[in-house]
Amino acid sequence: MILCDIGNSRMHCFDGERVEHLSFEEGLRKYARSDVRYICVNDRAKERLRSDAPGWRELEAEGLLQTGYEGLGADRAAACLGLHHGVVVDAGSAITVDVMEEGRHLGGWIWPGLRSWRACYRAISPRLDLPLDPEVDLYALPLSTREAVSYAVFAPIARLVKEAAGEKPVVVTGGDASTVAPLIEGAVIDEQIVFRGMEKIIMTKESHC
Amino acid sequence: MILCDIGNSRMHCFDGERVEHLSFEEGLRKYARSDVRYICVNDRAKERLRSDAPGWRELEAEGLLQTGYEGLGADRAAACLGLHHGVVVDAGSAITVDVMEEGRHLGGWIWPGLRSWRACYRAISPRLDLPLDPEVDLYALPLSTREAVSYAVFAPIARLVKEAAGEKPVVVTGGDASTVAPLIEGAVIDEQIVFRGMEKIIMTKESHC
Repeated sequence: MILCDIGNSRMHCFDGERVEHLSFEEGLRKYARSDVRYICVNDRAKERLRSDAPGWRELEAEGLLQTGYEGLGADRAAACLGLHHGVVVDAGSAITVDVMEEGRHLGGWIWPGLRSWRACYRAISPRLDLPLDPEVDLYALPLSTREAVSYAVFAPIARLVKEAAGEKPVVVTGGDASTVAPLIEGAVIDEQIVFRGMEKIIMTKESHC
Repeated sequence: MILCDIGNSRMHCFDGERVEHLSFEEGLRKYARSDVRYICVNDRAKERLRSDAPGWRELEAEGLLQTGYEGLGADRAAACLGLHHGVVVDAGSAITVDVMEEGRHLGGWIWPGLRSWRACYRAISPRLDLPLDPEVDLYALPLSTREAVSYAVFAPIARLVKEAAGEKPVVVTGGDASTVAPLIEGAVIDEQIVFRGMEKIIMTKESHC
């Protein structure tokens, strides 16, 4: 069985051992005839799956996660189910932050992903079209435009995630995890956390059958 | 004499009493033949001025502001000169934050403006295309997507500006000042601060002639 987490720009597939990052089209081609369980936050991709991969089965986290949050994305719900206690940061097309306390989801927020930040600055002015520097000093005031945009993106991640976490562990996942994790004191990378949540959904639903 | 602060999307004009917010074309039409001193961070607009308003004179803050910052925009430099001591937040196409200590500029950073944030979320997913709510609770975890994007935009402004300011006063200017100022404890709105800096440039340069 293949587990797929389909996002807004990529598809992440897990065969029980290894995570593969593919474009939607690549993933569809490669696994069209496989036994796939998926979660998907991309409505257009869902429509495509109905016609092009009718055998794939969507996993519903609905009702499994204790939360007061309305409209939580399936990927965030799965990551939370995979964590139980701590903060999970998923750094992909968007950077989502979710706080779990002893199996209960307390809430979370959504920043743009790193690629979107750059596009956003570029659209404001060509003067702001600069590569973000994840090694910018987050505890000194910026003294150049490149430092100024890098600090604006990375300092909130460092400060607000740590503030929300307190003593809880912080786990970072997603395509930009290796850039984002070093910003957050004590954070560790775990690229399988969403899939552990998906496994939990499968096991819970099957044990109910 | 008219003072103009020409930004990436608007032109702000000051006649010594009142600030007027105009589009670039409106401002050009209205004041083409007036005695105008301007600052401008928009290179395309500068080119237009050379042909369409050759009588307008650019003000150079160069050398007047004590700073280690390389490439500080003329609008930020003018606002800093207008402040002397404190933090100035200019909430326009971009949201710039600059820290002044007894006449010395210590540095600052640049977030996207509120309109750009919305466009940025919209480009990631239609699910994130939601109006930002400046009244979102910045000290509780978000429990809906609208709260999640609003918190992501506004909580860093509240936290990081306050952290940089410490006991210094915070002054907010720019088109979104009335949205941004209430987020920051103790902040006041001053829409003339850039123009006070421009007046200071004129007075300093003229006294040197």
